[in-house]
Amino acid sequence: MINTGHTICAPATSVGTGAVSMVRISGPDTMDIVDRVVRFRSGPAAKAPGYTLKYGTIDGLDDVLVALFRAPHSYTGDDAAEISCHASPFIVSSLLDRLTQAGCTLAEPGEFTQRAFTNGKMDLAQAEAVADIIASSTSAQHRVAANQLRGGYSAELRELRAQLLELTMLLELELDFSEEDVEFADRSRLRALLDSTFTHCRQLADSFRTGNAIRNGVPVAIVGAPNSGKSTLLNALLRDDRAIVSDIPGTTRDTIEETCVLDGILFRFIDTAGIRAASDEVERLGIERTFRKISEAEIVLGVLDVSESETSVMEAARSIAGRVDNCDQKLLFLANKCDKTGVNKNVNALNNFVLSIDNKKERIKLLEISAKTGSGLEKLLSALVSSAGITAATGTLVTNARHAAALRAATDSLRAVSDGLDRGLPSDLLAEDLRDALSSLGTITGEITSDEVLAVIFANFCIGK
Amino acid sequence: MINTGHTICAPATSVGTGAVSMVRISGPDTMDIVDRVVRFRSGPAAKAPGYTLKYGTIDGLDDVLVALFRAPHSYTGDDAAEISCHASPFIVSSLLDRLTQAGCTLAEPGEFTQRAFTNGKMDLAQAEAVADIIASSTSAQHRVAANQLRGGYSAELRELRAQLLELTMLLELELDFSEEDVEFADRSRLRALLDSTFTHCRQLADSFRTGNAIRNGVPVAIVGAPNSGKSTLLNALLRDDRAIVSDIPGTTRDTIEETCVLDGILFRFIDTAGIRAASDEVERLGIERTFRKISEAEIVLGVLDVSESETSVMEAARSIAGRVDNCDQKLLFLANKCDKTGVNKNVNALNNFVLSIDNKKERIKLLEISAKTGSGLEKLLSALVSSAGITAATGTLVTNARHAAALRAATDSLRAVSDGLDRGLPSDLLAEDLRDALSSLGTITGEITSDEVLAVIFANFCIGK
Repeated sequence: MINTGHTICAPATSVGTGAVSMVRISGPDTMDIVDRVVRFRSGPAAKAPGYTLKYGTIDGLDDVLVALFRAPHSYTGDDAAEISCHASPFIVSSLLDRLTQAGCTLAEPGEFTQRAFTNGKMDLAQAEAVADIIASSTSAQHRVAANQLRGGYSAELRELRAQLLELTMLLELELDFSEEDVEFADRSRLRALLDSTFTHCRQLADSFRTGNAIRNGVPVAIVGAPNSGKSTLLNALLRDDRAIVSDIPGTTRDTIEETCVLDGILFRFIDTAGIRAASDEVERLGIERTFRKISEAEIVLGVLDVSESETSVMEAARSIAGRVDNCDQKLLFLANKCDKTGVNKNVNALNNFVLSIDNKKERIKLLEISAKTGSGLEKLLSALVSSAGITAATGTLVTNARHAAALRAATDSLRAVSDGLDRGLPSDLLAEDLRDALSSLGTITGEITSDEVLAVIFANFCIGK
Repeated sequence: MINTGHTICAPATSVGTGAVSMVRISGPDTMDIVDRVVRFRSGPAAKAPGYTLKYGTIDGLDDVLVALFRAPHSYTGDDAAEISCHASPFIVSSLLDRLTQAGCTLAEPGEFTQRAFTNGKMDLAQAEAVADIIASSTSAQHRVAANQLRGGYSAELRELRAQLLELTMLLELELDFSEEDVEFADRSRLRALLDSTFTHCRQLADSFRTGNAIRNGVPVAIVGAPNSGKSTLLNALLRDDRAIVSDIPGTTRDTIEETCVLDGILFRFIDTAGIRAASDEVERLGIERTFRKISEAEIVLGVLDVSESETSVMEAARSIAGRVDNCDQKLLFLANKCDKTGVNKNVNALNNFVLSIDNKKERIKLLEISAKTGSGLEKLLSALVSSAGITAATGTLVTNARHAAALRAATDSLRAVSDGLDRGLPSDLLAEDLRDALSSLGTITGEITSDEVLAVIFANFCIGK
């Protein structure tokens, strides 16, 4: 309750064309400040119970609707009010002026949510989900953020924490009875519990790959020789009726990058420089960047112009395949310009090539398309959605880089416990690594935290949240 | 109540970065639709009284706050609800989907306010003020729009209408008693009332000049010879601490135009092409545009480089003065580059010139400045604010072009009545012109209106208002 001594205010709705704007107030003096600024015919806010809606007048400014909340039944857990006025920037700024003159402080970014955390209304992972849910633009992003906000994620972490506490208890039992030679029996139980906890922890850490793809978009690199049709393909994908092209703020745009939503999944298409033997330094740098983009992509679209000679088609295919060496990546070869005649021989050669390097066709596929006429695009879109592997993802997904780092640290500590158990280390040394794992987990939901970490987390919130 | 058969919904807050978004619902099925979409632990909306605030869950989407209003105590006068959710575009669009699936129709722009008008919650002038108050960015704009919204303006129109009805009554009395020779006595009373009504109506129509300046900004033309320092002056004005430079949407920008707010008054500075003898057709067109801009300005800033020869300074001054012929315009001569030495002689000559053409210095002033060093700018800013004549403006101001046109039409009709009275026309002919005046006034507040007019007015509103 350190920060909750003063009463804060901030606009809660975005500035722009709209009908209504809302200003939010929270803190111990909420009701008195509201009564100083708004005149109610139905009696003062100070005498109203929580969950009251009152119509009032701000003299010379506007008529407003005020929703009043009483501690602890509010977003922050303190007394709070929401004033709805006409959506004029002038009215909102004048209202904020009057509120600060009446004793309010302008809120810092995320200060309302930070108070909710401080007052125990939500844990840190839930607080972070508030920012995520606001930034969500696809159903997948929203589903993950909503689960985290509702506490589904925190519950899973609590379960993991309970397993770790049970491990600690078993170790302490061993310490207590160390002279009675109970070690062996306990250590086999310890081993079983440790293995399952380690697996659980690592699965959560690993889910960040999918979680991050959902949150920030599935990166898809479009690779191919110059004039193979990369740009035509990108335009065709973005123009498709199924694609909802959107501007997602915060997307990295150091190369040409377009985002669109397919079946509720956000894709980030990265149009790379063509791959070919570099003739000068500038071109070499461009191709190096292409290679880096390929290695960061989840899915690589290898565009091949099958109307070219078999030699050059196969060379291009081998060059692309040689770059996709990460076994988590999917590679979709696109036999482009299939509308032209006489391409069958090249398509067959490519099919054989794909079979030769991935005979189950699980990781590498060949699709016949024509970016120009649009034929085969429907199949490509389906292949993109199934390759993203997101719709299939069940269970809890970690979307937050901070959480992923903490889970990886906890996984490392548990691996150290496991190694120590193998090497027959004494219980007190194992207990130390277990405490490290517990403390890593604790930083996620905020049982263990520092002012610096909190400052960084809430600085990324918007004003009024 | 024609349009209020169905229940409408729309986002009421602007889309963008914020903490909270609000979706508005209104119509007879509001409570049932809310109960279909939101699950409340505290019982259904259908059983809640008006002015109730409920916390609820939209399954799989979000937890929301719902404010419920019962007819006629709502914005529209119908049953209504406001659902506050997290400010995510995904949540807002999903919520609108669910509401339309549950029986809502997406609202047209301004449809909520149009229903308020149809249900008699506000007249047409008040409805138009809703759009104005949202667009207000200065205290002066807000003051005028707020007065109109609160009905101060409508009350004044009602008063004018009452005077017209009294005039009609007097004429009808004359018609009734026409055989008893009561004409003379009634006509002198008629004349007195007509004169005062005519003056009142014309004053309101004339107030549009000031009202429009408040609403759309006071146009200030900056005129002067090339290199007299026009651009330096404009930059100095916009950089000044007192000036709040803002982008006002809808401002005409066919010449270089900058807006800023000084003492709560919006100014539109128009930097014109220099005035000089045109050497070619293109330049001639530019100078013609300058002359047009001068004639449209409320205030003309005539910039003179007093470091030039007396002949050229005086020639420039005479050329500018010759163009400012509208007696409603203010002309501020700026003796620029006063930081240079040896300019006193020219400044004295200019002072004498100003005295010779406006010996009370009411309409034309001379200010010594240096746009470069900033000296004299403070006085210039004060002169701009006082020349705008807006702070001094009291009483009702007409800010709406539609209203101004109707008031001018009413003034014309009243002038026709007055002429007819002079020429001794019979009462029934006078009555016809009076009815025209009444009907013109009636279009302002909406007693007399057509679907076409309503469509045009509400089409300019935003969705959700």
